[in-house]
Amino acid sequence: MGFWKTWFSTSEPFTTTKTTHFEEHTVEAAGNSGATSVSGTPPQEARIVFSTERDIDLYELEELCDAVGWSRRPLRKVKKAIEHSFLVASMWQVRGNQRRLIGFARATSDHAFNATIWDVVVHPDFQGKGLGKALMKYVLKKLRGEEISNVTLFADPHVVDFYRSLGFMSDPEGIKGMFWYPQ
Amino acid sequence: MGFWKTWFSTSEPFTTTKTTHFEEHTVEAAGNSGATSVSGTPPQEARIVFSTERDIDLYELEELCDAVGWSRRPLRKVKKAIEHSFLVASMWQVRGNQRRLIGFARATSDHAFNATIWDVVVHPDFQGKGLGKALMKYVLKKLRGEEISNVTLFADPHVVDFYRSLGFMSDPEGIKGMFWYPQ
Repeated sequence: MGFWKTWFSTSEPFTTTKTTHFEEHTVEAAGNSGATSVSGTPPQEARIVFSTERDIDLYELEELCDAVGWSRRPLRKVKKAIEHSFLVASMWQVRGNQRRLIGFARATSDHAFNATIWDVVVHPDFQGKGLGKALMKYVLKKLRGEEISNVTLFADPHVVDFYRSLGFMSDPEGIKGMFWYPQ
Repeated sequence: MGFWKTWFSTSEPFTTTKTTHFEEHTVEAAGNSGATSVSGTPPQEARIVFSTERDIDLYELEELCDAVGWSRRPLRKVKKAIEHSFLVASMWQVRGNQRRLIGFARATSDHAFNATIWDVVVHPDFQGKGLGKALMKYVLKKLRGEEISNVTLFADPHVVDFYRSLGFMSDPEGIKGMFWYPQ
């Protein structure tokens, strides 16, 4: 996988080369599903870490999006969208030196007033454990740190209550989210 | 005014120096209100032109936003927002070599899939003449030219029907626009 190649292209251990991008976040019941331990070695504790690193393996991201049933998008365009997003947030399950991408979100912004969050995804194996909330809190913390005062998103009906629980309001003062698609 | 200084900083006539940024757009009943003709010269026909030029005089923009009653925002942040917007569209009344900013809109984007339109404003003297619609059509044409497939905005209740008339849909398939503000 190209990503791992990039990630481990130096001989230094991961934790010293990437500490500026990764932040550990303690999450209760972080979940072990999908993780494997090498035969003969004792199983290692799994940690959940968050990152704003943009150098995400696009195939691994596609796999994550496939897992929640999203339509495939051209990787060339996904790459461009990531490059031009204001914030790219990813969530990883880390066990020893094995890392698995389990969540993703990104935001566009004018860098001053508004940010709009897109493509929030948590792998089904890791849903229902508070990790979606943890990922969103991480995103909001990062946006707040950039003095963005208006964070918006467009929520599918089944996740409106999830975003409400995080303090998002739908249609405040009658403001309506509207969409236009090319004919 | 700094803007005019910048605009006319060369000795070449406006139309030859800025043709790549300005596009004339024929609009019926373009309106003469607010325009003045120099005493002793015959009044000149007013034209409406559109531009994606970003070098907008911030004080002139502030005056336009004041005219529709928007809260003032720090010019430093407005400048940053314009710099980091994907598209900046302005609408001008041109009479001879006099130009007046009468409309504005901008969009953030990931340059690939989504764009979100912000700060759509038309001067009250020029409202009710189809110019808001003309400005939005110009914005949509520009975004479509960049292969953006999903154009979004957040509409105040009194302009929802205006955007509907342009083909925008509110809450398609139950998707809700949601807002989060820092505590």
